Amino acid sequence: MKIDGVHHRSIWLSDDGWTVRIFDQRQLPWRVEIADLTTVAAAARAIKEMWTRGAPLIGATAAYGVALGLRADASDTALERDYEALLATRPTAVNLRWALDRMKAAVKALQGDRRVAAAYACAKTICDEDVETNRSIGEHGVQLINDAARRNPGRPVQVLTHCNAGWLATVDYGTALAPIYLAHDQGVPVHVWVDETRPRNQGASLTAFELRHHGVPHTVIADNAGGLLMQQGKVDLCITGTDRTTATGDVANKIGTYLKALAAHDNGVPFYVALPSPTIDWSLDDGGKIPIEERNAREVTHIAGWTEAGERVEVRLTPDGSPAANYAFDVTPARLVTGLITERGVCPASREGLLGLFPERKKRGAA
Amino acid sequence: MKIDGVHHRSIWLSDDGWTVRIFDQRQLPWRVEIADLTTVAAAARAIKEMWTRGAPLIGATAAYGVALGLRADASDTALERDYEALLATRPTAVNLRWALDRMKAAVKALQGDRRVAAAYACAKTICDEDVETNRSIGEHGVQLINDAARRNPGRPVQVLTHCNAGWLATVDYGTALAPIYLAHDQGVPVHVWVDETRPRNQGASLTAFELRHHGVPHTVIADNAGGLLMQQGKVDLCITGTDRTTATGDVANKIGTYLKALAAHDNGVPFYVALPSPTIDWSLDDGGKIPIEERNAREVTHIAGWTEAGERVEVRLTPDGSPAANYAFDVTPARLVTGLITERGVCPASREGLLGLFPERKKRGAA
Repeated sequence: MKIDGVHHRSIWLSDDGWTVRIFDQRQLPWRVEIADLTTVAAAARAIKEMWTRGAPLIGATAAYGVALGLRADASDTALERDYEALLATRPTAVNLRWALDRMKAAVKALQGDRRVAAAYACAKTICDEDVETNRSIGEHGVQLINDAARRNPGRPVQVLTHCNAGWLATVDYGTALAPIYLAHDQGVPVHVWVDETRPRNQGASLTAFELRHHGVPHTVIADNAGGLLMQQGKVDLCITGTDRTTATGDVANKIGTYLKALAAHDNGVPFYVALPSPTIDWSLDDGGKIPIEERNAREVTHIAGWTEAGERVEVRLTPDGSPAANYAFDVTPARLVTGLITERGVCPASREGLLGLFPERKKRGAA
Repeated sequence: MKIDGVHHRSIWLSDDGWTVRIFDQRQLPWRVEIADLTTVAAAARAIKEMWTRGAPLIGATAAYGVALGLRADASDTALERDYEALLATRPTAVNLRWALDRMKAAVKALQGDRRVAAAYACAKTICDEDVETNRSIGEHGVQLINDAARRNPGRPVQVLTHCNAGWLATVDYGTALAPIYLAHDQGVPVHVWVDETRPRNQGASLTAFELRHHGVPHTVIADNAGGLLMQQGKVDLCITGTDRTTATGDVANKIGTYLKALAAHDNGVPFYVALPSPTIDWSLDDGGKIPIEERNAREVTHIAGWTEAGERVEVRLTPDGSPAANYAFDVTPARLVTGLITERGVCPASREGLLGLFPERKKRGAA
């Protein structure tokens, strides 16, 4: 999508053909800073420290991380070591393992330069497929927005989203935001309630940044506000992304998603989750078994922002001596999810629903 | 309660016998700053700009505001004008109107100096009664914590609270925190999950400040985290305050309370609301009719904190050009409230429950 009118992907190769470039998303929305990744360690750090984030983009960055690692050392030992190092960066997103497994399979039988070339080729394929997948998610999801527009003629469709599941969380388009971008581009009036998404504020920073640059009307709200908005009839539908969806339709996503799903359910507001199929963990039946990442408490006790003078400053919010906890994800049970928007269409959040769209999984699906 | 071991109330008279002193709570937890209020305009500003806040303390501050106003001009015209000015400061808390009506009734028949003296006396009574009321709330509420301790021997009782309903929101003790203070003082191990409570962070600043100074173990969490904690069985009960409770038990409280009540209900966690009886709006049957204050969007787009160097700095969190909305309260329907903790005991959140404790309201209660 676009920044200041210029199209970008969230990950790409520099002109040298091998250096991996990403945005340092910790600087957004205030500064658009590009980071060069030249080693597997740099790729792992970029994922772990959230220079780059979002389940699909984590997978894509890890894929290129494998390529960078093999470029330095194409041995099997190095491949195993890099695989483990990248896998350990973030525990919740399943796309990470998916991308790493795919990379390993693509290079396994090769050696030396051919192994490196195959790694870069596979990483590029993962990225290109992600773009196509998200475009398809957008095309399926936009029908839900069009339906809401027909039910409420003469006013914008009100969509609530949590965290950032936009193009900055994927390679392009986004998952939850793809239907919104398509609706906007097709002239369907849409307005987005953007949860700021504490503690890291990916909504207030990244989603607001994306929507503003694409010209989509939006309003940033505290994470606490969504329930009231739904009580007051100010939300037509919710769309979020997910970091891992079980084979039964339970959805792990950014902490706080579950609370919004409860409010949507309590107020009869449809709650959709948009996901590319690599986000589905076919081996898991119970969302309660998804590991929940616990991050540094400093993300809760401190916050960074920009002063009037344009200086980035980190300030402390809590009293000295008050500890904090920082759980990064929660799990929304399938019963609260109206539907899953995938690249193959929209389905109920259930085993039957998912297998209806992905029948090839019937054999391998957990019994 | 105590700051650095010294007992304080949240509002008191200075040694001159008429100047009203409060804490400028906007400076907490970083700096304990006392503000002198010498005019009704200063009192109104202190309420509107939230130097002082919390439904009971708003009532107490408004009461002293009337006294300050009458000291300058004891006429009926001035009384009416001051009443309206103070009433307009915050729309949601019903204690405000309750305190103002009580002040007006106390001074109506008097003139001149006797009117002023009666105003100060009534304001003092309102404050003293609030302290006694909150102590009673604590004594009733502590039994709920003791029950939870008996159910889970050998580990602290885990209480989740939202916003600040502690001594800084009242004249002393607090409402939601009063049972916690009493439990702690009685040697019942208790640990408090403190919602930071965006956008104004009254949890992360005021509740954490209070608990730390009183030595109660606590952990600050993002507002998004409570649902996960309840899913994981890490919360034994929730206790919040309220700014207005209807005669049928619907509860207006700080934005986000409704989301936590939904999560408590979904996970079988008891959800209690602590309130002094002046918080009950006997004229209202439907929480949906409680006016919801909308505050300046800047409270969402900007946040103040302290740098390592000890400087208070306000930083911007959202991109330029991204609007924000700032709803201050939501309404939790009675069906999600396990019980109301009042100065007369704990009752179901229903008309029958409330009338059981306040039978004198049966005549005047809305039919």
